[in-house]
Amino acid sequence: MSCVFCAIVAGEAPAIRIYEDDDVLAILDIRPFSRGHTLVIPKRHTVDLTDTPPETVATLARVGQRIARAARRSGLHADGNNVVINDGKAAFQTVFHIHLHVLPRQQGDKLSFAKNMLLRRDPDREESGRLLREALAELDSAAQD
Amino acid sequence: MSCVFCAIVAGEAPAIRIYEDDDVLAILDIRPFSRGHTLVIPKRHTVDLTDTPPETVATLARVGQRIARAARRSGLHADGNNVVINDGKAAFQTVFHIHLHVLPRQQGDKLSFAKNMLLRRDPDREESGRLLREALAELDSAAQD
Repeated sequence: MSCVFCAIVAGEAPAIRIYEDDDVLAILDIRPFSRGHTLVIPKRHTVDLTDTPPETVATLARVGQRIARAARRSGLHADGNNVVINDGKAAFQTVFHIHLHVLPRQQGDKLSFAKNMLLRRDPDREESGRLLREALAELDSAAQD
Repeated sequence: MSCVFCAIVAGEAPAIRIYEDDDVLAILDIRPFSRGHTLVIPKRHTVDLTDTPPETVATLARVGQRIARAARRSGLHADGNNVVINDGKAAFQTVFHIHLHVLPRQQGDKLSFAKNMLLRRDPDREESGRLLREALAELDSAAQD
């Protein structure tokens, strides 16, 4: 299988999973720009905004919003999030299976953000994944959606 | 009126309009990071991803996708787009009425992009607006959506 995201969706490549439903899978980025950097991936392979159905783009945005809200409530203590689709190589897309980034941010993290852009590693990915999953479950039980 | 985007939606502040329907307005950013940098704004005021209804976030994404596709077809000759929601001050949100950015990008524009991040001006905003509106109309007539 030549697409790494299709391999992850099929369970043939490893990933730390944050959320899954019939249409999408959310996983931690292996080279995070910030702690909890999550990718929301449609299960059906399309490349970018030119070939992805509008309803799939809408679903990515809805799931991204939930993860952004969870990141604020979570033990990651995010104060905000960048939610991003890089559409095409000219826009820094590197995996050509469309995905939406959720980058949890904290007040005053600009310096560590710059450092993370160079290092792009999380000292405890498993824990970051656990904290996000826990906060998503809390969002569900709080029925705030 | 204290919110500049509410004032623009109400027609009480000027903007170069790209697209409008019952729910959203799309305008050119007055300090563009790239030519054709567009903001998609819900007409009903909410602040960020914590208080915006999921259906509104989905609508922003769908309209953003259409503008991104139009930017590629347009006389702006975009090769791709960054589509971004900055959720919160910690994520560089500066106007606290939620909005989605569409940043048309071209292959090899990294240098001019860096320059534009400093200058943040478009030598012909009216023309950029016209080119995007024209391409959106073409998308409609091509019924590719």
